[in-house]
Amino acid sequence: MTKVNLSQKFNLVDEFWSPRIVGELNGQAVKIAKIKGQFIWHSHENEDEFFLVVKGAMVIRLRERDVTLNEGEFFVVPRGVEHKPVAEKEAHIVMFEPTGTLNTGDVNNERTIEKVKRI
Amino acid sequence: MTKVNLSQKFNLVDEFWSPRIVGELNGQAVKIAKIKGQFIWHSHENEDEFFLVVKGAMVIRLRERDVTLNEGEFFVVPRGVEHKPVAEKEAHIVMFEPTGTLNTGDVNNERTIEKVKRI
Repeated sequence: MTKVNLSQKFNLVDEFWSPRIVGELNGQAVKIAKIKGQFIWHSHENEDEFFLVVKGAMVIRLRERDVTLNEGEFFVVPRGVEHKPVAEKEAHIVMFEPTGTLNTGDVNNERTIEKVKRI
Repeated sequence: MTKVNLSQKFNLVDEFWSPRIVGELNGQAVKIAKIKGQFIWHSHENEDEFFLVVKGAMVIRLRERDVTLNEGEFFVVPRGVEHKPVAEKEAHIVMFEPTGTLNTGDVNNERTIEKVKRI
């Protein structure tokens, strides 16, 4: 039961595409990530995923269109929908999703993070 | 499946202490509210409640201490914990909580909003 300052937490993150858990409620995790470049196409069978940009901009590529998110904008990727997060420049995002959600969803490769750190 | 711009949504809110649903995922709602002044003491028996300040500042009073949140800071009030949100000046907040969560929790009075609008 301590408050969380998002900027302070982002200062602790030193790699891209590596989410950190910064809070939990009702079985859901609040995660943050620094992103830059391209992530992989993937989907989450049973989890809807919330992306909020707090610094910079990102694109959530969907198979039929691209969703560009600027600072202060969010998007929910429904379960089962393939998506590919991309950020041309470094961006900072907040995610909200079930605690156990794998970053690469249905894909298991070198970018998969099995155990997300809590900071 | 459309993106949400938080500023645009806040522009649609014309009253204090009246949450609006701006997104839903995994049975949880993303709500926004403009707050100013004092709310009431209450608790939520089965729901943890997430408060993020995106503009201004707020205090979440707990029985044993006060938690002051400035812009970019969040706090999770665990289920069952009595709290009283307060904002000296107008503040804008984002909440995550189960969709059906009542704003006044275990208290039912003139400030209770049975049906939260979706905007």
